[in-house]
Amino acid sequence: MAKRIAVFGEVMMRLQVPGYELLSQASSLNFSFSGTGVNVASALARFGHTGYLVTTLPANAVGDAAAAYLRKLGLSQEFIQRGGNYLGMYFLENGFGARPSRVTYSNRLESSFNTAPGDAYDYDAIAAQSDVVHFCGITLAMNDSVRLHMKSLAKAVKARGGTVVFDCNYRPSLWGPDGYEKAKPHYEDMLGLADIVMMNEKDAMFILGMRTDKENRLDQLRELLPVVAAQYGIQVAAGTHRSVNGDNTHSLLGFIYKKDTFTFSKKLTFSVYDRIGAGDAYTSGIVHGEISGFSPAKTVDFAAAAGMLAHTIVGDTPMSSESEILRAMTEAVGDVER
Amino acid sequence: MAKRIAVFGEVMMRLQVPGYELLSQASSLNFSFSGTGVNVASALARFGHTGYLVTTLPANAVGDAAAAYLRKLGLSQEFIQRGGNYLGMYFLENGFGARPSRVTYSNRLESSFNTAPGDAYDYDAIAAQSDVVHFCGITLAMNDSVRLHMKSLAKAVKARGGTVVFDCNYRPSLWGPDGYEKAKPHYEDMLGLADIVMMNEKDAMFILGMRTDKENRLDQLRELLPVVAAQYGIQVAAGTHRSVNGDNTHSLLGFIYKKDTFTFSKKLTFSVYDRIGAGDAYTSGIVHGEISGFSPAKTVDFAAAAGMLAHTIVGDTPMSSESEILRAMTEAVGDVER
Amino acid sequence: MAKRIAVFGEVMMRLQVPGYELLSQASSLNFSFSGTGVNVASALARFGHTGYLVTTLPANAVGDAAAAYLRKLGLSQEFIQRGGNYLGMYFLENGFGARPSRVTYSNRLESSFNTAPGDAYDYDAIAAQSDVVHFCGITLAMNDSVRLHMKSLAKAVKARGGTVVFDCNYRPSLWGPDGYEKAKPHYEDMLGLADIVMMNEKDAMFILGMRTDKENRLDQLRELLPVVAAQYGIQVAAGTHRSVNGDNTHSLLGFIYKKDTFTFSKKLTFSVYDRIGAGDAYTSGIVHGEISGFSPAKTVDFAAAAGMLAHTIVGDTPMSSESEILRAMTEAVGDVER
Amino acid sequence: MAKRIAVFGEVMMRLQVPGYELLSQASSLNFSFSGTGVNVASALARFGHTGYLVTTLPANAVGDAAAAYLRKLGLSQEFIQRGGNYLGMYFLENGFGARPSRVTYSNRLESSFNTAPGDAYDYDAIAAQSDVVHFCGITLAMNDSVRLHMKSLAKAVKARGGTVVFDCNYRPSLWGPDGYEKAKPHYEDMLGLADIVMMNEKDAMFILGMRTDKENRLDQLRELLPVVAAQYGIQVAAGTHRSVNGDNTHSLLGFIYKKDTFTFSKKLTFSVYDRIGAGDAYTSGIVHGEISGFSPAKTVDFAAAAGMLAHTIVGDTPMSSESEILRAMTEAVGDVER
Amino acid sequence: MAKRIAVFGEVMMRLQVPGYELLSQASSLNFSFSGTGVNVASALARFGHTGYLVTTLPANAVGDAAAAYLRKLGLSQEFIQRGGNYLGMYFLENGFGARPSRVTYSNRLESSFNTAPGDAYDYDAIAAQSDVVHFCGITLAMNDSVRLHMKSLAKAVKARGGTVVFDCNYRPSLWGPDGYEKAKPHYEDMLGLADIVMMNEKDAMFILGMRTDKENRLDQLRELLPVVAAQYGIQVAAGTHRSVNGDNTHSLLGFIYKKDTFTFSKKLTFSVYDRIGAGDAYTSGIVHGEISGFSPAKTVDFAAAAGMLAHTIVGDTPMSSESEILRAMTEAVGDVER
Amino acid sequence: MAKRIAVFGEVMMRLQVPGYELLSQASSLNFSFSGTGVNVASALARFGHTGYLVTTLPANAVGDAAAAYLRKLGLSQEFIQRGGNYLGMYFLENGFGARPSRVTYSNRLESSFNTAPGDAYDYDAIAAQSDVVHFCGITLAMNDSVRLHMKSLAKAVKARGGTVVFDCNYRPSLWGPDGYEKAKPHYEDMLGLADIVMMNEKDAMFILGMRTDKENRLDQLRELLPVVAAQYGIQVAAGTHRSVNGDNTHSLLGFIYKKDTFTFSKKLTFSVYDRIGAGDAYTSGIVHGEISGFSPAKTVDFAAAAGMLAHTIVGDTPMSSESEILRAMTEAVGDVER
Repeated sequence: MAKRIAVFGEVMMRLQVPGYELLSQASSLNFSFSGTGVNVASALARFGHTGYLVTTLPANAVGDAAAAYLRKLGLSQEFIQRGGNYLGMYFLENGFGARPSRVTYSNRLESSFNTAPGDAYDYDAIAAQSDVVHFCGITLAMNDSVRLHMKSLAKAVKARGGTVVFDCNYRPSLWGPDGYEKAKPHYEDMLGLADIVMMNEKDAMFILGMRTDKENRLDQLRELLPVVAAQYGIQVAAGTHRSVNGDNTHSLLGFIYKKDTFTFSKKLTFSVYDRIGAGDAYTSGIVHGEISGFSPAKTVDFAAAAGMLAHTIVGDTPMSSESEILRAMTEAVGDVER
Repeated sequence: MAKRIAVFGEVMMRLQVPGYELLSQASSLNFSFSGTGVNVASALARFGHTGYLVTTLPANAVGDAAAAYLRKLGLSQEFIQRGGNYLGMYFLENGFGARPSRVTYSNRLESSFNTAPGDAYDYDAIAAQSDVVHFCGITLAMNDSVRLHMKSLAKAVKARGGTVVFDCNYRPSLWGPDGYEKAKPHYEDMLGLADIVMMNEKDAMFILGMRTDKENRLDQLRELLPVVAAQYGIQVAAGTHRSVNGDNTHSLLGFIYKKDTFTFSKKLTFSVYDRIGAGDAYTSGIVHGEISGFSPAKTVDFAAAAGMLAHTIVGDTPMSSESEILRAMTEAVGDVER
Repeated sequence: MAKRIAVFGEVMMRLQVPGYELLSQASSLNFSFSGTGVNVASALARFGHTGYLVTTLPANAVGDAAAAYLRKLGLSQEFIQRGGNYLGMYFLENGFGARPSRVTYSNRLESSFNTAPGDAYDYDAIAAQSDVVHFCGITLAMNDSVRLHMKSLAKAVKARGGTVVFDCNYRPSLWGPDGYEKAKPHYEDMLGLADIVMMNEKDAMFILGMRTDKENRLDQLRELLPVVAAQYGIQVAAGTHRSVNGDNTHSLLGFIYKKDTFTFSKKLTFSVYDRIGAGDAYTSGIVHGEISGFSPAKTVDFAAAAGMLAHTIVGDTPMSSESEILRAMTEAVGDVER
Repeated sequence: MAKRIAVFGEVMMRLQVPGYELLSQASSLNFSFSGTGVNVASALARFGHTGYLVTTLPANAVGDAAAAYLRKLGLSQEFIQRGGNYLGMYFLENGFGARPSRVTYSNRLESSFNTAPGDAYDYDAIAAQSDVVHFCGITLAMNDSVRLHMKSLAKAVKARGGTVVFDCNYRPSLWGPDGYEKAKPHYEDMLGLADIVMMNEKDAMFILGMRTDKENRLDQLRELLPVVAAQYGIQVAAGTHRSVNGDNTHSLLGFIYKKDTFTFSKKLTFSVYDRIGAGDAYTSGIVHGEISGFSPAKTVDFAAAAGMLAHTIVGDTPMSSESEILRAMTEAVGDVER
Repeated sequence: MAKRIAVFGEVMMRLQVPGYELLSQASSLNFSFSGTGVNVASALARFGHTGYLVTTLPANAVGDAAAAYLRKLGLSQEFIQRGGNYLGMYFLENGFGARPSRVTYSNRLESSFNTAPGDAYDYDAIAAQSDVVHFCGITLAMNDSVRLHMKSLAKAVKARGGTVVFDCNYRPSLWGPDGYEKAKPHYEDMLGLADIVMMNEKDAMFILGMRTDKENRLDQLRELLPVVAAQYGIQVAAGTHRSVNGDNTHSLLGFIYKKDTFTFSKKLTFSVYDRIGAGDAYTSGIVHGEISGFSPAKTVDFAAAAGMLAHTIVGDTPMSSESEILRAMTEAVGDVER
Repeated sequence: MAKRIAVFGEVMMRLQVPGYELLSQASSLNFSFSGTGVNVASALARFGHTGYLVTTLPANAVGDAAAAYLRKLGLSQEFIQRGGNYLGMYFLENGFGARPSRVTYSNRLESSFNTAPGDAYDYDAIAAQSDVVHFCGITLAMNDSVRLHMKSLAKAVKARGGTVVFDCNYRPSLWGPDGYEKAKPHYEDMLGLADIVMMNEKDAMFILGMRTDKENRLDQLRELLPVVAAQYGIQVAAGTHRSVNGDNTHSLLGFIYKKDTFTFSKKLTFSVYDRIGAGDAYTSGIVHGEISGFSPAKTVDFAAAAGMLAHTIVGDTPMSSESEILRAMTEAVGDVER
């Protein structure tokens, strides 16, 4: 049954150098609009749910372009505010083989989203229309005002019995020096409010400062995640282990921890066209599985396949339908479909 | 010695999304014109033969564009009729890695080709100028009027001592429910008229309803093809076994059955840029070998190399010269040619 | 106050040759999705109303692309059906100076819209949510099934007190030989149902067979339109006189006839970038003026300015906001806005 | 009735900066293949005649690309030789308004055409298949070997009763210092062989060194052309007077002198998209009129309209059909054709 | 004789929608780097002088791209600092006819240039290498730190006998409410330091608060400029009157006031391809005339022609050579140059 | 410490078919300017040195475009002459998988560089500003005049104590039949002047005619290079062994021979985006290591990594910074950098 999912987050303009040139070689850019929330809500809308984006866009031509793009992605505009002057942007230069992709940010701290006033969002109205609300650690890094919006909205949804999803998504460059220390109390607040959390053992060790004697990632995960879940009252914790292989393929192992049990996906290995945003496809798969009543095994395999397919799609935002993901879970790569 | 080859078939407009976007993400399309007959005749023209296309194009700007494109491919226009209003079209979205390519057709049944009148083609005049004529199973699926053209032209060429080539090329989506049943009598007619047939064991089993206890594809092939050849008086039967590998390369094993003997090509494994039309390159190689007096071994290796190279060429239509194919048969992939 | 406007009509895919090449010179096409209804509803959505499109799109990748595009234009999807296989398409080659633009259609009669089943649309549900419904003469030319949908929906809206808009928009190529005769009864039905009609003196003379001794277009208009309005009970009749000038500019004179009075706009003369769909911008201006309670003078000037601006916009669909149109009504063309 | 027209001339590769950037601002080029002969033969092929190009193209990938392009234009390849290594090229930067277009040539003197051996062309075989042969003054400027080809072929065609067309087309930069002196004897040879000559009063004065006291161009033309025609036995002399207007439009006045009578076209004024090659469209119109038995008045109006339309077409080579030119002769510029 | 010119100013990234789409319709952007100082210095470098840019660029991929672009324009990099993280950006949507162009800025106040530290530039070292230094009113609007850099550098150059150029260039949106009041003292400081000033009567009235009873622009100019020049000790004051004509052409009348005398250019009327930055071309013409010892009449005609040609060039930055400008001063628009 | 490096060589215009089409399928080309000297000097400029290009460019729009491009690459223009009319060009068609890339040259022998007069370059002035000068075997193949420039400049630099680098870079197609015989004396001259030589065992065997009984490439190298170094007084000899693998990756093994000792790099295996010019990146790495006092081991690993990264960069010219190369020497291929 279709659910109503609100996502709170910033919309970024992605300015991508076409092909494999560097920015200093190029003279044009392809652009799109995305963000963790955009990606998750759009993927869920494609699965048949209703995706509301809670954000603020500038009241100018750039904001108009973003709004049009978000409509095209299928997001409901009801909770999008217009105000302020700027949109966060980032430049993307595609890597090739031995040369990694490179992202350069514009100044996002003055964006319409990050300077939205304290009364920008009607938490209760949003909560009233939302079965699920999604937040992420990128937004949490912005400023106190944004963090207050996050926690207030999370509480409002929780108060009405809705489900709170939190993706830890720690980005060192956003928190600056001593970042883990600064971040920890805010992460603890969000973990305390969250029902479904996207995280792995590194988040536990680095953000929460937990310790383990294990050296193997999987062992660390198996030891730490149950502790975190118990401590913060988390019902579902999920995430991935990614490895970049020598032949430039990536491998993804998805996991979900629920009711004291770990379930792992098949380890998927695949060619990568556009890596950015693929983690959000995985998140959308976990959320879809949970709200659709999939078994943990189906959920984690669905999420991993959703993540894999997102690597083959142009842009940050996943574009695969539920049936395409289900097919990718079961079939070998095939010939042309006609 | 250069031969005159007529091909009977529909010209399609291919509308391809550039790069790896989905149609719903894109705003432009690259277009070209192709078709099984176009591909085969163009490849043979590139080998030094004369390729006549027997078809009908609309008498408007789309038909003009198709005609110009076909001239560029080197096809003789002498037997191209102009009339009707429409050209069949298809949209192509390129797959990447785990995501397969996808083809969406426009309505071709009302095309100029499929609605050409009964007297559209002067079979005898065409036959008088043709050493070889080529047909395929896609055209056979269209309607009774088209099928009548096919059989009449085949008979006219046969009557004058020409060689009839038939490519089974069964497409389930074109024949609809109970397709094999509907198709069988028409295939039998064409097989009865044909000297050279492109087919494999699946065609024998599914279209002709033959049975075998063998489970291995090669064993099935070795059992069934001789029976078909004997039954319909086919001199040469040839085809390929294709496999799509885990690393997205394809493998191709070509075979030719002639004078009671199977000959197989080396199994070629290669990266794929554009898979559509590559089968027609293989066909053109078989036909070229046969009309040039190659040994079966050289013919099947030439055809397989032609097929392999066609996967590296943009568009449906093969563009490789005889010398490029001969080089690909013998040499390792090399450095830049300069 | 914002109104709810439903438009009934076909969505077409526009395949435009970039720049000024002919289709036979080009190798790529820009595409978009449009249609009289799309254009009118989208323009009205941009003015702050809610635009519902009542149509049927194919259930495939082309339909997905159309739906995404329509979402981007701001159209509500609630009454869009998915079914059938095809979308009508047209090719557009841009003219330059002495060389006119050229449109070539694909076969639209088999489109999802034109083959939608008799029970495709819930007229009453649509009428219940619509203050205004819009139809046009292009759709009326399709087939009996489509005409039945039109008349049934018009009656349902009228029954609930809504406003029916009908744009005569007669296209000779769609009605074929003896077109006026075939068309007349259907136009009479629609005129009888309509409150607001887009038409001019040519429609009265050619479709309705009316006669006048006047030779001047304006005199003909002044004589015939009041007769038509009286005969069919039309409250508002509006339209334009367009002239193409020697220097390739166009001139537009808008008129509105209401309560026995003609009101004319200023005659606007302007450069043309993209002429297609500009008439729909004029229509949207008339409808907006009427539902917003503008005076006839403001309505007709607003509509003419909306029409003028639509000639400067890429694509069929108007993109100007109400404030941009109001500014164009009053100000001279200015320097860069920054 | 369709005629067979041979043109002798060099094929050039046109490398055009897209849009209005300078070469030093750009990073890509659009390319095509053209030449006076190509343009004339292609235009005549579009009018229903058969156009043979007599030239030499390099035996490499550039020559292959040129040959494919020429096939697309509808030129018969029978008399195209392949040999040598190079093709002449030129860069084109589009002007805008007050900034003129700029052409920069690569070194053409070493081109396959200009270094073709003495026995490259079988004059008699070409003459046997040609009703008309066309030459131009650009080719005449190249070298003695090329001039020998020209004169030999002209004589061969004349000997078999064919018509020789010569376009004076003097380019100062090709003849260098004292160019008129160097050029005169060769021009005299060609004029002596020609039946139809494209020239105006400037050619008479500058190349042939004729004098007049008149100051007005038309008076000069009326005085000098009859003298030239009488002296060299020319049956038809034709040309244009072009003026570039202050608003960047061009005006064209065509003339034809035949049987002691001057006939002038309407003076056409029009916007210009691509000026290069438009003179060749005019020539093709004169030739078409002559070989089709048009009256001088129809011929010169047809040629002028062909020239005008060629200014609206992308690339050097005219693309208009006879019916499009006939329509442009009579109708005002119209609205979209659909 | 070639001079050394330093310009102090911010480099902006221009992100331009290709063609005539709106940002909300497009999916790609063309980019370049410009700024008043960049434009002036680049134009002067093209005239044979040495142009130094005094600015700060971010130390990341965007700064690298800007630096590479500025090198391509021919600017000396010696006084370009690298530091900070951001570059100012603006989006440009091209207008067409009745629809004006539209510029939307990103947040420039946090740019590397506007946050450069107090010791970023070695004023004395720059002054030692500069015959002329150029500043503009856009930069003056930024913040106190930038203003301090401007005044300090101006004083250092003046102290060494160099020439100070100041372009008033008042942009209301940058100064905000009560802008003229805020701006006045800073403009007075710069005018007091400047030898050559770009300004017109509006600057005198609005920024300096001067009054006149004249109503005609030229009369106002003739009354006010001498007063300003006398008051601030300005040797040369120059500027333009621009008008946008009904047919979308622009007209430019240049003036220069020097030694108590006004000299006016011819009034130039021309088509406009890219209007942004054309004022800087005019400035560069005035400066070039002054440092090259042109007469005022030649200077102002040269500057006006430079300004006119800049409207025909893609991008903000003038690209014409001295000889191209001299030719445009004397010749009518010509045919293709080849 | 930054050094001053002069490179002597021809600038070529690279005209590349976008994507994977053949020239005969395409209609546009991407262009850039490069050459062995350009690539080496540009790479060294990126490492912080000053790169002077000693060459001659045409005095026209093509030369302007080349000069602007070279400025963008960071090359000093001080020793670039302008004269003559032509620039050498080559067409590049990208290979894919089993289909190799293909280069087709235009006629370079008439280029401005190859026809520069005997007094074009002031050898002594160049030598006075150069710590290092670089030559290559491509230039050596041109003509006697160019060879005289090479040897004169090499002597002038040597006379002032500078370092002479010579890259053997033998291209069979440039020397024609009996090429090795023709080339040998000139190679011997350059080897006698050089301090650092890029070569391998094939150069020793084919150009210098040396013999060995060894069959393995490495054994041949170990035997022959010391003999060559001793004979010509070469201090450093370096080069690579490249292999093209079955999966289209390339492998590179770098070596350096110095002070009687061979040092080898790690064997690097990598995906290839643009192979042309990658050898020059290796050379630049060797030169950088030598002039920066790296150990042979660090030098050869740096050079190999520089070569590897150059295969991932669009265009002939390396674009990687020293820090990017150092990182590629040590780290595994990583995820997106952000």
